[in-house]
Amino acid sequence: MSERPKTPLLDKADTPEELRKLKPEQLPELARELRDEMISAVSVTGGHLGAGLGVVELTVALHYVFDTPNDVLIWDVGHQAYPHKILTGRRDRIRTLRQGGGLSGFTKRSESEYDPFGAAHSSTSISAALGFAVANKLADKPGKAIAVIGDGAMSAGMAYEAMNNAEQAGNRLVVILNDNDMSIAPPVGGLSASLARLVSSRPFLSLRDLAKRLARKLPRPLHDAARKTDEFARGMTMGGTLFEELGFYYVGPIDGHNLDHLIPILENVRDAAEGPILIHVVTQKGKGYAPAEAAADKYHGVQKFDVVSGVQAKAPPGPPSYTGVFANALIAEAKRDETVCAITAAMPSGTGLDKFAATFPDRSFDVGIAEQHAVTFAAGLAAQGYRPFCAIYSTFLQRAYDQVVHDVAIQNLPVRFAIDRAGLVGADGATHAGSFDISYLASLPNFVVMAAADEAELTHMVHTMALHDSGPIAVRYPRGNGTGVAIPETPLQLPIGKGRVIREGKSVAILSLGTRLAEAEKAADQLDALGLSTTVADLRFAKPLDEALIRRLLTTHDVAVTIEEGSIGGLGAHVLTLASDEGLIDGGLKLRTLRLPDVFQDHDKPEKQYEDAGLDAEAIVATVLAALRRNNVGVIEGARA
Amino acid sequence: MSERPKTPLLDKADTPEELRKLKPEQLPELARELRDEMISAVSVTGGHLGAGLGVVELTVALHYVFDTPNDVLIWDVGHQAYPHKILTGRRDRIRTLRQGGGLSGFTKRSESEYDPFGAAHSSTSISAALGFAVANKLADKPGKAIAVIGDGAMSAGMAYEAMNNAEQAGNRLVVILNDNDMSIAPPVGGLSASLARLVSSRPFLSLRDLAKRLARKLPRPLHDAARKTDEFARGMTMGGTLFEELGFYYVGPIDGHNLDHLIPILENVRDAAEGPILIHVVTQKGKGYAPAEAAADKYHGVQKFDVVSGVQAKAPPGPPSYTGVFANALIAEAKRDETVCAITAAMPSGTGLDKFAATFPDRSFDVGIAEQHAVTFAAGLAAQGYRPFCAIYSTFLQRAYDQVVHDVAIQNLPVRFAIDRAGLVGADGATHAGSFDISYLASLPNFVVMAAADEAELTHMVHTMALHDSGPIAVRYPRGNGTGVAIPETPLQLPIGKGRVIREGKSVAILSLGTRLAEAEKAADQLDALGLSTTVADLRFAKPLDEALIRRLLTTHDVAVTIEEGSIGGLGAHVLTLASDEGLIDGGLKLRTLRLPDVFQDHDKPEKQYEDAGLDAEAIVATVLAALRRNNVGVIEGARA
Repeated sequence: MSERPKTPLLDKADTPEELRKLKPEQLPELARELRDEMISAVSVTGGHLGAGLGVVELTVALHYVFDTPNDVLIWDVGHQAYPHKILTGRRDRIRTLRQGGGLSGFTKRSESEYDPFGAAHSSTSISAALGFAVANKLADKPGKAIAVIGDGAMSAGMAYEAMNNAEQAGNRLVVILNDNDMSIAPPVGGLSASLARLVSSRPFLSLRDLAKRLARKLPRPLHDAARKTDEFARGMTMGGTLFEELGFYYVGPIDGHNLDHLIPILENVRDAAEGPILIHVVTQKGKGYAPAEAAADKYHGVQKFDVVSGVQAKAPPGPPSYTGVFANALIAEAKRDETVCAITAAMPSGTGLDKFAATFPDRSFDVGIAEQHAVTFAAGLAAQGYRPFCAIYSTFLQRAYDQVVHDVAIQNLPVRFAIDRAGLVGADGATHAGSFDISYLASLPNFVVMAAADEAELTHMVHTMALHDSGPIAVRYPRGNGTGVAIPETPLQLPIGKGRVIREGKSVAILSLGTRLAEAEKAADQLDALGLSTTVADLRFAKPLDEALIRRLLTTHDVAVTIEEGSIGGLGAHVLTLASDEGLIDGGLKLRTLRLPDVFQDHDKPEKQYEDAGLDAEAIVATVLAALRRNNVGVIEGARA
Repeated sequence: MSERPKTPLLDKADTPEELRKLKPEQLPELARELRDEMISAVSVTGGHLGAGLGVVELTVALHYVFDTPNDVLIWDVGHQAYPHKILTGRRDRIRTLRQGGGLSGFTKRSESEYDPFGAAHSSTSISAALGFAVANKLADKPGKAIAVIGDGAMSAGMAYEAMNNAEQAGNRLVVILNDNDMSIAPPVGGLSASLARLVSSRPFLSLRDLAKRLARKLPRPLHDAARKTDEFARGMTMGGTLFEELGFYYVGPIDGHNLDHLIPILENVRDAAEGPILIHVVTQKGKGYAPAEAAADKYHGVQKFDVVSGVQAKAPPGPPSYTGVFANALIAEAKRDETVCAITAAMPSGTGLDKFAATFPDRSFDVGIAEQHAVTFAAGLAAQGYRPFCAIYSTFLQRAYDQVVHDVAIQNLPVRFAIDRAGLVGADGATHAGSFDISYLASLPNFVVMAAADEAELTHMVHTMALHDSGPIAVRYPRGNGTGVAIPETPLQLPIGKGRVIREGKSVAILSLGTRLAEAEKAADQLDALGLSTTVADLRFAKPLDEALIRRLLTTHDVAVTIEEGSIGGLGAHVLTLASDEGLIDGGLKLRTLRLPDVFQDHDKPEKQYEDAGLDAEAIVATVLAALRRNNVGVIEGARA
């Protein structure tokens, strides 16, 4: 671990209140220290680095100019908020980022009054800020709401819906467009800064307001022409027509690393009578840390690293990730079948589709942060005879739930869903956990819902999906690495709605769905060692259920336990419902369902999360023993073996 | 019933193929006949009228110019597609619209090859059309995809997401913006039609294309200026800057009732090398039927009516609707508490919030078709101390599922959800049924989920929600009228997670959630008449469950049945899970769960739908008797009474 950086100014600025006591000319030095401190912290924790480095100056400027927390500052997504955390009383815990019990890697209401609205999914900040702004307006209270949102997040429909409604907030709403996509960034220089400063100034705003009021008195066509001329004149120099169309007053672009530009413009905006205002700030991801600036991914997300060299700790060698296995399996299908295509919503590397796109650029679609469109677009492709795979994280597929129901399930269209990050997700925490997909998909008519127990199973399932043309089908698989089993060279087409028995016993049946299978097998070993005889089945399908297998297991064993990495309402509920429908419970049935608990679990090490959730071998064993004991039957005596 | 209109031309044009044999000068007369036929049909069926009347000429022109069904025509929402149905081989069934076994009130793939993509929820058409267009492009097949979308539907983020991705479709995608909001419609006249015709013509497009290619060779700033000048010149005359920013070639506005304007412009667009193209068509809702034109709602949705007078059949006098009861209850809360506010997503009359808005304009927010924004905006209001009620139909709340999870549930913010149209919805059919909300909400930590058994209960529940500040809370209630019970003048604050016993028996327990309670009571009468003794409980809460009550009922009765108007994974699954967790099923438990079946039920009369679903008194009785018989216990002997 490298030495802590020297930070004499930052040491005096633990809160925005203290920050505001500094002189403006001290701020560049403070920003430097803040950047060093953040680099130092993330070097020991790992986490999101590039995004935070890009907003160091912006963070300083916002807290310096605005009256946080009375003015609410909402960071979209929140993974760029590490500098914000350091400046808002959380510096002492900054080296606990993403660790169990430590600070969250995103903004979080329970952490600080300076986090008025938590985030982690993209594109929510303008809607939330509008809620704050309108509440203040209704209550006739002071206080602005500032949303800081990246250019990528602007591709989500939700951001557009919010901007479309922003006008009602008036000058209480400030949206800062943090534009770090250098490929589309307009030129930023002294001229545009001067212009931005001019148009954000009170005299200009007043003049413009007057002109607008005059223009309203003109006949309609002239009024329209005047309005368009104003927009055009400003759009020509500065862009932003889209935002003007949506009712924003556009200011920018501004160099987001130049505090001499940022501070006076933010001060103008703070004091403006006009609004809502959108400030277009151009920043550079990874700014100020040479290894990040030089890297293609700008150190978006990093392992622990050496500050001097920038070299990241290597993950220990291990089995391939589920994501990678999925990508390879899909590429194989696409080679076999030219109608196979793939859709991602701005997660090409996260879903492995970057590899797919490299091989099949024409059949690969990255639609941006636009899950709703992704799913219905896929439905259109399917309706015209293609075989689309939508690869979306479980938690983000929630964004497209209505499209899944209305456009896919009701029409029974064969869209394939590859649901990555299903279940608990370790350091990413509650906002990224894929807890609900079994429940929200298996309740839908026409759907086939699978979960892969290991990477070989995933390969079979991708193949099965490619061949399944009669309706929608989904496979879920977790974050992280597989178990190391051999990947089948020739994947199998699995029979729909059929599970498999892993080991056959006589008294205890464990019905597993997905990757908890390894724990089920461990539990079986332990139970057998206690004199019980344990069957382990991998059900493979949450829907349709393997009714024959379940019926047999429930009626021929003393106790049965289902286990899944999902909330209530999923596999366990469906098995119980089957047992109830068929009257299997009438004569007594020791059936238990292990599932995620009814809480949003905080970020932690995966093993700890599973332990907390009661989804490990120990929990299975304890559940079985408790079920057997509950009936006053001893462990050994209760076994049929 | 009035006489059928004379339709000599329409009689010869049952399909687009036949339509295309007509001469252009015959089309206005055909449109008149089509309009008459549609009015006649809807006068006997009821349904959506105003929207269809507005697109009669557009429907004729589209099928005349484009090669449907090889060119796919996708009507957004689909409730304006009655003229389309008449022209595409379904005229013989047009008087079965929305009747059981008859035509759907929306587009539907299973009905016709001319319905390539069904709809009913708004704003899906561009995404779907893009799927078709891209599929044709990949397969190198001819065929355009045409999406017809209303200006209201453009407020949904999904439409924006799709437009943002449209460029890849090139000239295979045509979006027709059907603008019938006269308040914002630009002037439409000869000049604009000529202009539209000019800019959509091949010479102009070629010229523009050439200019663009030349411009690309200019240095970047000059290129940008050239692009902006082109946009500006066209935007000045015609509007459409927003669409141009999103990559569309904009044509319009055009008078959508003038076939002399429509046909040549559509022909130009059909043959254009440029694209994607957005055609801005201005239409008048209710056009051509005097009573509709004169009505404020343009006969958006009508009962059966007399064609000559336009007078609609009155619904028989009955109890107030749940929607109306909700509105009154919420107004009462807002009078008591100035922090109560209400949010609707473009359904002010459907949710009753028009009444609320009339009383509290400042605290009422109609955000447009923007459910995602609605929910997160409400979360922002709640975070700043307000008490927002989001009134959204069950089926449309699916649009905001991620916002419910990520912005409301995880942050445990007290947003109130008033979920109208929960359960089956009669003539509106599968796309509008509210089948999944219990399942998708009750699986979320922190949530309170209620269902109202009658309108008095709804009033208590609205009051309970207003007072519930500790987290999110929802109430679901059905489409249609209440039961006629007295509305309480002073509503009660219900204890969270407590049900109520309606009648106490000894052998059979019916655990009801929501408005199936009346059927439960009927079933209890029938069971009691058979010598059984029946308890009926209204659980009120799907989450948290009244565990004490459920435990007591399950352990003291011979058989228990849950009933809910929702899919698998809801109340029944939660009760079964409780019974399993606590080992209540170990010693034998006759517990059955009645729920919606695992199919998307077609539109029909509500009573028929309930019968099909097995959610009426007869089904309850049959379930109880079957459960008792299964154990070889006679009905009488099986009773403890």
